[in-house]
Amino acid sequence: MIRFLTSGESHGERLIGIIDGIPANLQFDIQFINNELKRRQMGFGRSERMGIERDEIQVISGVSNGKTTGNPISISLKNRGTNIETPEVIRPRPGHGDLVGALKYNQVGGRNILERASARETAMRVALASICKLFLRELDIEIYSHVIGIGDKRVKLDYYSGIKTEDLKRADSSEIRLANSEDEKEIIKEIKNVIKEGDSLGGKIEIIGKNIPVGLGSHSNWDDKLDGKIAGSIMSIQGIKSVEIGLGLGSGEIKGSKFQDEIIYDGGYRRKTNHSGGIEAGISNGEDIVVRAAMKPIPTIRKGLKTVNMETKEESISQFERSDACAVPSASIVCESMLSYVLANEILKLLGGDYMEVIKDRYKRHKKYIEER
Amino acid sequence: MIRFLTSGESHGERLIGIIDGIPANLQFDIQFINNELKRRQMGFGRSERMGIERDEIQVISGVSNGKTTGNPISISLKNRGTNIETPEVIRPRPGHGDLVGALKYNQVGGRNILERASARETAMRVALASICKLFLRELDIEIYSHVIGIGDKRVKLDYYSGIKTEDLKRADSSEIRLANSEDEKEIIKEIKNVIKEGDSLGGKIEIIGKNIPVGLGSHSNWDDKLDGKIAGSIMSIQGIKSVEIGLGLGSGEIKGSKFQDEIIYDGGYRRKTNHSGGIEAGISNGEDIVVRAAMKPIPTIRKGLKTVNMETKEESISQFERSDACAVPSASIVCESMLSYVLANEILKLLGGDYMEVIKDRYKRHKKYIEER
Amino acid sequence: MIRFLTSGESHGERLIGIIDGIPANLQFDIQFINNELKRRQMGFGRSERMGIERDEIQVISGVSNGKTTGNPISISLKNRGTNIETPEVIRPRPGHGDLVGALKYNQVGGRNILERASARETAMRVALASICKLFLRELDIEIYSHVIGIGDKRVKLDYYSGIKTEDLKRADSSEIRLANSEDEKEIIKEIKNVIKEGDSLGGKIEIIGKNIPVGLGSHSNWDDKLDGKIAGSIMSIQGIKSVEIGLGLGSGEIKGSKFQDEIIYDGGYRRKTNHSGGIEAGISNGEDIVVRAAMKPIPTIRKGLKTVNMETKEESISQFERSDACAVPSASIVCESMLSYVLANEILKLLGGDYMEVIKDRYKRHKKYIEER
Amino acid sequence: MIRFLTSGESHGERLIGIIDGIPANLQFDIQFINNELKRRQMGFGRSERMGIERDEIQVISGVSNGKTTGNPISISLKNRGTNIETPEVIRPRPGHGDLVGALKYNQVGGRNILERASARETAMRVALASICKLFLRELDIEIYSHVIGIGDKRVKLDYYSGIKTEDLKRADSSEIRLANSEDEKEIIKEIKNVIKEGDSLGGKIEIIGKNIPVGLGSHSNWDDKLDGKIAGSIMSIQGIKSVEIGLGLGSGEIKGSKFQDEIIYDGGYRRKTNHSGGIEAGISNGEDIVVRAAMKPIPTIRKGLKTVNMETKEESISQFERSDACAVPSASIVCESMLSYVLANEILKLLGGDYMEVIKDRYKRHKKYIEER
Repeated sequence: MIRFLTSGESHGERLIGIIDGIPANLQFDIQFINNELKRRQMGFGRSERMGIERDEIQVISGVSNGKTTGNPISISLKNRGTNIETPEVIRPRPGHGDLVGALKYNQVGGRNILERASARETAMRVALASICKLFLRELDIEIYSHVIGIGDKRVKLDYYSGIKTEDLKRADSSEIRLANSEDEKEIIKEIKNVIKEGDSLGGKIEIIGKNIPVGLGSHSNWDDKLDGKIAGSIMSIQGIKSVEIGLGLGSGEIKGSKFQDEIIYDGGYRRKTNHSGGIEAGISNGEDIVVRAAMKPIPTIRKGLKTVNMETKEESISQFERSDACAVPSASIVCESMLSYVLANEILKLLGGDYMEVIKDRYKRHKKYIEER
Repeated sequence: MIRFLTSGESHGERLIGIIDGIPANLQFDIQFINNELKRRQMGFGRSERMGIERDEIQVISGVSNGKTTGNPISISLKNRGTNIETPEVIRPRPGHGDLVGALKYNQVGGRNILERASARETAMRVALASICKLFLRELDIEIYSHVIGIGDKRVKLDYYSGIKTEDLKRADSSEIRLANSEDEKEIIKEIKNVIKEGDSLGGKIEIIGKNIPVGLGSHSNWDDKLDGKIAGSIMSIQGIKSVEIGLGLGSGEIKGSKFQDEIIYDGGYRRKTNHSGGIEAGISNGEDIVVRAAMKPIPTIRKGLKTVNMETKEESISQFERSDACAVPSASIVCESMLSYVLANEILKLLGGDYMEVIKDRYKRHKKYIEER
Repeated sequence: MIRFLTSGESHGERLIGIIDGIPANLQFDIQFINNELKRRQMGFGRSERMGIERDEIQVISGVSNGKTTGNPISISLKNRGTNIETPEVIRPRPGHGDLVGALKYNQVGGRNILERASARETAMRVALASICKLFLRELDIEIYSHVIGIGDKRVKLDYYSGIKTEDLKRADSSEIRLANSEDEKEIIKEIKNVIKEGDSLGGKIEIIGKNIPVGLGSHSNWDDKLDGKIAGSIMSIQGIKSVEIGLGLGSGEIKGSKFQDEIIYDGGYRRKTNHSGGIEAGISNGEDIVVRAAMKPIPTIRKGLKTVNMETKEESISQFERSDACAVPSASIVCESMLSYVLANEILKLLGGDYMEVIKDRYKRHKKYIEER
Repeated sequence: MIRFLTSGESHGERLIGIIDGIPANLQFDIQFINNELKRRQMGFGRSERMGIERDEIQVISGVSNGKTTGNPISISLKNRGTNIETPEVIRPRPGHGDLVGALKYNQVGGRNILERASARETAMRVALASICKLFLRELDIEIYSHVIGIGDKRVKLDYYSGIKTEDLKRADSSEIRLANSEDEKEIIKEIKNVIKEGDSLGGKIEIIGKNIPVGLGSHSNWDDKLDGKIAGSIMSIQGIKSVEIGLGLGSGEIKGSKFQDEIIYDGGYRRKTNHSGGIEAGISNGEDIVVRAAMKPIPTIRKGLKTVNMETKEESISQFERSDACAVPSASIVCESMLSYVLANEILKLLGGDYMEVIKDRYKRHKKYIEER
């Protein structure tokens, strides 16, 4: 099993992460990981902090001669611009963990909580999960994402369940991770307005896993179901308030005869459609894994929100912390990361094995078995 | 920690479940559990099987003199009408686990898979999780649910974030678990149509936790976040394809200044609104926990769907298994159950303790501490 | 991963167990399991209860046409002679959980605790873990045990690290599970004496895993080490107070140049000796896994022990519950079971896979790879 | 729950560890932790590396203003003397993980394995678990250890089950952690001899937990038993080959009437003896937790051992890595650490809670409840 822990505060000197269970002899590609971090940092609507940071990992252990060794991999990620003042937060920001965290952990104010609850933590998730992505790539499994809406603006084409790899790749060259640049102008304008207003925006993301093998997850007990695991991991991302698989919310609205993905055979079992988003009965069926997530607007509002002063209990205006106006493009990379982690873990359950050579051999045989059934 | 395992096939003699970690000296109320099972069995649109079954548990261990003992509780639930033929399923039903399961577990056909992937399994989840619900009730925490849409029919009033306990209770007297009976006629008519057509319908559910303490979950690591755990547990239910928390999908569409739930103080911290659905930064904030789920239409379609004969690889019509036309009201009870399980577990993390008396005392003190902050 | 839960009280109607994660298509052999239960029930020095019980499992789920299906397997095991009185235990028996359990779970006396803490629970462990043993047998891995001492009587030959399979098999025909029947007479005489005195005896057991593959466990993090897992599982057995691996306690007494097992090559890597008990750095090295355990004497002493009346706090004589005088032979089977469980789980980590055919194929390839290194 | 991951290789730049789940507002005492590391580094018979290292932690996250915050705590520990050559190890050292690890992870030689399997890893375990020890100290729970034998020399007084705190404290001023300095001279002489011979020695350790509350662990399922957890954690330490609880191995040799610890009442329940080592039925009974462990001699033998050249398969002499001649005193601190970790975790299960103030209040009430039963 792959497991990981992250640590570090957003204004601390650095983030530290450890990931355990990555097989040996995986070609370790630091540039790939740094590029994932760069993808996470981009996006129109992010604060100037992004400019400062330009994340680059330092690998502390678990890699030798450019390959993983099977040992735990630890990674350090420096925070920049940390020499700023970090006062206690006694006018907690609604929507953040400031108040609930201070109550739960018996803190005077929200400072120690927000330092950790901050989305800065996701930088380390991305760094660690990029190693899972590297692992998946060796098996030709690819994870993509694109933004399908920001605020009340949606992309015109609903690519749902039909989006092509080339379109998905295009999202990387869009400032706001759109697969179709036609919609960009309008949406960026909307973000600009919101920045001007000192307000913030959320949005919607689609995450796609391509070239997925049949047989990840299980129907057998609730906590082995692939869809449950994916939903849990995506909903754990800062700001995410909904997770859909396949047709998602729309699944509740159409008739069974329309929803079900009919089975065909063309030298292997395929589906005519993919309303199920690649998962039936908690098991991957070989079609693209299709996940959608909605992100709430960032709770730090420059113009402030009504709150309570924790010392005096008087009505106040929430404290301001440096923040983005819109982090949806960034969250889309974090979603890719969490999906990569879940899938890599399930692959290891399916195949076992401690080093890449045997895993790749077993994978080839598994795919052959599936095709020949 | 509370953990449980369920077992049993839908045409096997019985289902068996074990739940471990329930504190001692909890008043054990078999009638309450059987009533939960009855709530799960009701709902217009269910097959005649429902008539046959009328689930009643047999408690095998873990209870003595009407109280839990701290020992693992095991429960047996007889299946009725099991003396029917159960042929191998070589014309797998799209949308079910028949095909993917047969491939994953190297079975000739889907029979052994569907027996377990069947929603019959959720009867045992409900039975076991009802014990969690009993536990929560001792702390005055209540879990409700109601149906907010079936197919493309939605209830007229969107109760979201404002629904009152009395309305929630009304759902129990509705055949399709509506909080407002006005919408019932039209929706039942729709289900009747679909039954006539031999088709099926999904729908949408809202699940509400009331009287929730501040401090369940944590912001600290991804797998401790309460929202992630809830999403994972709800998405693990047969047929569920989306999970939303609070404003959910809509969170992506409104501005930050509108979304955030402003903090007020009236002898304790409260929120003016509840768009967050009771969870900020992965921690419960004391407001109602609001979860929404969408269920796909049941994949067994009486009129059949195109599929492939697993022996000949020829195009075929999917096999028929006895099935409901609409199981949304039933799923709504399963959602309550999974939420109860997650919350009971988090309560035990917050409070520790092996017997009810100490847990209740600590709970009282915790609530006092929160009110006095 | 394989996981299991057991439930049931010693005077309850039945024990119930569920094991999850057993691969599909394993030939399920009820007679083998019942025979394991019979092996557990034998042994000179056991109470008349053993005569009554003759355990035979009922399989409730997870098996179809004589094969596992990948679904959770649930098993029921009837208790016999349960229609006896079970009074509250307010004069707790030292050495049992009566007192500590009653305090921890806030019970008036020890009854509800002893019902579960009783070694009767191990019958279900044996039943479930026998399925792991069946699994291991398909891979030619065999788990044996024999008794090496009862009270202060030790077997004359110390078979340590050199015992042959044929000797191990002989333990099954000994009333007290000795590999060499020469010692039997004296030891049985000792047990008879103790029975006459109304006292009890513990003893020592050796558990051997044969034909173990290289590579189970890991050196990488503490909770992945095979020796830690084995020690934890064996120490969890009722009455066990020490666990040794390989030379065990004696490891602390000899010099490094004598202890280490030199490596030789004869078409594959082997060791000249096996002081390590088959595990180096937390990883199996292909030699026999050698584990030793010591069991304390059964705490129920017919003649009674000094204790305290929980109601009056006065000095009293401990209550009597039906009990054995010596259960070491029985514990030896439970040790086999726990070792089987741990090893089966590690095999699945090494090989992955959901059905026996693929697991066996991967196992063959793994062994070939090891031989060819 | 407290969980932790360590990472880092013995010749890498640094070790990194993360511990999650430590309650907030624990006074964080770096000097205490560094002192624990110093205690681990001492001991006659250790290589010159010890002189070089003098471990001092750097705290990267999770601590603010001298107190824990509830956030994950990450720690960095520099390795010194790392600029030495680290050639591939193709003549694997028997007793180390060199060969088995290279086979398991498909490495050319043992280098990447030994870097991680090395006992250097335990420095980070000690650093992290010292935080658990700090936590226990706030509840007046103390963990001690002393060496009771090195090679075939045993301490003269067997302190078993009667050792006083003042004697235990004396071990800290002994070069080889003896509680009674009388034995020191002879044992150090033995170590000197062994160093001269280029050989190595193991030994035996006793670990004692004092002031333990009633009720840690559970009798209910095998993996909740306190003794199983302790055994698993101690056996996971490099070089440990046996774990005993209470009378341990000797438990198998005496009669039940002698073994059992009679219960008395003197304003609370106590035991006359402590053969059980503080644990009955998997639950702590309030007496001292007494654990004993045996450590094998360090496998790196200066004079070399017969092995096989992994490239040529020819008989060879094992490669030399810098090593100690005897690390038993050091292992004794690691044993304290693992026991501290297990107990801290169980305390949190018993008490729940996220910050020290509430945990301490609940602890006081728990102890009062126990005394008043």
